[in-house]
Amino acid sequence: MNTAHREAILLTPGPLTTTLRTKVAMLRDWGSWDSDFIAVTARVRRSLLDIISGHETHAVVPLQGSGTFSVEAAVATVVPRQGHVLVLDNGAYCKRAAKLTGLMGRKTTVVAFDESEAVSPQALDEMLTADPSITHVVMIHCETGAGVHNPLQAVADVCARHGRGLIVDAMSSFAALEIDARKVRFDALIAASGKCLEGVPGMGFVFLRKDILDGCAGNSQSLAMDLYDQYVYMEKTGQWRFTPPTHVLVALDEAIAQFQEEGGQSARLARYEKNYQTLVQGMAELGFKPYLDPAIQAPIIVTFHAPADARYDFRRFYEAAKANGFILYPGKLTQIETFRVGCIGAIDSVQMQQAVHAVALALKELGIASAAPALS
Amino acid sequence: MNTAHREAILLTPGPLTTTLRTKVAMLRDWGSWDSDFIAVTARVRRSLLDIISGHETHAVVPLQGSGTFSVEAAVATVVPRQGHVLVLDNGAYCKRAAKLTGLMGRKTTVVAFDESEAVSPQALDEMLTADPSITHVVMIHCETGAGVHNPLQAVADVCARHGRGLIVDAMSSFAALEIDARKVRFDALIAASGKCLEGVPGMGFVFLRKDILDGCAGNSQSLAMDLYDQYVYMEKTGQWRFTPPTHVLVALDEAIAQFQEEGGQSARLARYEKNYQTLVQGMAELGFKPYLDPAIQAPIIVTFHAPADARYDFRRFYEAAKANGFILYPGKLTQIETFRVGCIGAIDSVQMQQAVHAVALALKELGIASAAPALS
Repeated sequence: MNTAHREAILLTPGPLTTTLRTKVAMLRDWGSWDSDFIAVTARVRRSLLDIISGHETHAVVPLQGSGTFSVEAAVATVVPRQGHVLVLDNGAYCKRAAKLTGLMGRKTTVVAFDESEAVSPQALDEMLTADPSITHVVMIHCETGAGVHNPLQAVADVCARHGRGLIVDAMSSFAALEIDARKVRFDALIAASGKCLEGVPGMGFVFLRKDILDGCAGNSQSLAMDLYDQYVYMEKTGQWRFTPPTHVLVALDEAIAQFQEEGGQSARLARYEKNYQTLVQGMAELGFKPYLDPAIQAPIIVTFHAPADARYDFRRFYEAAKANGFILYPGKLTQIETFRVGCIGAIDSVQMQQAVHAVALALKELGIASAAPALS
Repeated sequence: MNTAHREAILLTPGPLTTTLRTKVAMLRDWGSWDSDFIAVTARVRRSLLDIISGHETHAVVPLQGSGTFSVEAAVATVVPRQGHVLVLDNGAYCKRAAKLTGLMGRKTTVVAFDESEAVSPQALDEMLTADPSITHVVMIHCETGAGVHNPLQAVADVCARHGRGLIVDAMSSFAALEIDARKVRFDALIAASGKCLEGVPGMGFVFLRKDILDGCAGNSQSLAMDLYDQYVYMEKTGQWRFTPPTHVLVALDEAIAQFQEEGGQSARLARYEKNYQTLVQGMAELGFKPYLDPAIQAPIIVTFHAPADARYDFRRFYEAAKANGFILYPGKLTQIETFRVGCIGAIDSVQMQQAVHAVALALKELGIASAAPALS
């Protein structure tokens, strides 16, 4: 399997590298109806609300499945069947959100931005003024397609001023970038276990604004994805409606304990910032050029232009880096050849230096002297 | 936490007790895009088809989430939007299937049977004759509400004769009760990782008949639950569309290896049969009476009448059994007070004897001399 006889480090934005302590938490089976497990669910929910200082304003509802399941569930639960959703689109995950919104029968309008730019609160302001039928806005905090850090506070302020609902996909930003529910007004905000909290994948969770909760009853056409139903049942019984991913939840509980011990969101962001700086500086020395303007780059995942050298081939490059212990991530841009490197997970700048070294060895193996892209 | 300082044995029908070997498989992180992980997905899919001898007739599509997510996905994918679904209802999980079918907008008819009886192929035959608008039938192989073993072959034969589609929830029977796709005709059959395959919970899978696959395109109003879309993407790339529960899948892979080593479905059934016999005989000696006629009882989960003794209280009984190392399961019948004991998981008759002993100690603690129910 792994030629290095050592587990490779994942430079992918979830699944990512977790600590052994997090994984060891999965070495026990839990009865989902048992009070011990109910206590874990309650503790995780409490801790998640702590992270956004949301106890006053929001409830949090965990959901089985990947993050996309929770995004779909949030839209299905929060948006009435006659609602009209505006999706601020600057990447692949925005397009996915628009697709699932349209599929479930909600009227959907997409406003396209360049994937190398942040979405524009000014453009949103104009659109909301022009079209009062828009009931909800969907935005992605960190668009993992390219890695753009979108302006959450400004978008939320525009939505609040217009009295429209805001649904935030914070999948790859939550617990790393600051999100304070006392300052940012949103109806729903979605993240997942296997991202910046550094748990294993298998569940998502959605923060729902308490003021809108009662109005969410009956919106969802899906039983499994009805977060209102899940919320009501969980409040009443402490249990999940359907079999929970027990091992994933206890791993998340353990991952959150480590997050708290590290110093919470600001400490995690500082570590990821350092990972990001180490990566970008090291890659620059090899000739690599990041795709984004650093001003809008989140320190979560970095898109690099593919080298111009004709000997470059992503598959071979990937395998060579893997043989040196690091798993890279393919690009997700449609027009330009790129690849991505995650800065998140249970890794620090030592691993990032090693990652750059692994990339250097991979280039050497492919016979590439400089990784400079064609357009630099 | 656990007063015995030892992990309790779960007598619950999923989550259940898994082997340490299965859990230890989760001590590694996997890149979901990586060839090593793609190989695991392929191996699991192949092994699942082996179990039903379905390589010729069916494809299998794994899906994130609990088993109910896969049931909903199967209905959403297989039944056209103008379809009409008949649900054979003899328990709580049937009612859930009917609810999710109606919620997603498919016309739904429910035919009710007593929860102490198996569904009737004869009644189904009459209903399909009387109502040609019914396009699909939903049945549950082992109704976990009471533990009834429903007549899969006979129901499938009736559906085949009438040319109607059959969707089988085989959540708690798959890999224990025999299901041979060469003999039983079904459009979709659903099970999950954390049941009789003895994996951890977090994903389901659906067998889809190849002949109907192409016709499933565009049926689902849910992106996350579109099994056709998941199938097409997986066939093309070997990958899951959205972040897979990587640790859950590798645990399932390891659990399947142990299933094969044990001797497959017939060996697993034999072990569960022995668990069941040990349980029922031991409980009878304490005065307990099973709810079901043994002729329709699956050796998966047994419903027992609550003792008539006024000192009986399920909560206290449960806690006392737990203190002795065993986790019981509450009843799910609406009219009668019962509790349930699972016979499945990585346990054998030694543990079942210990379980009976734990129940005896629990009765003693509650001061109950005989567990005989009121109606015996």
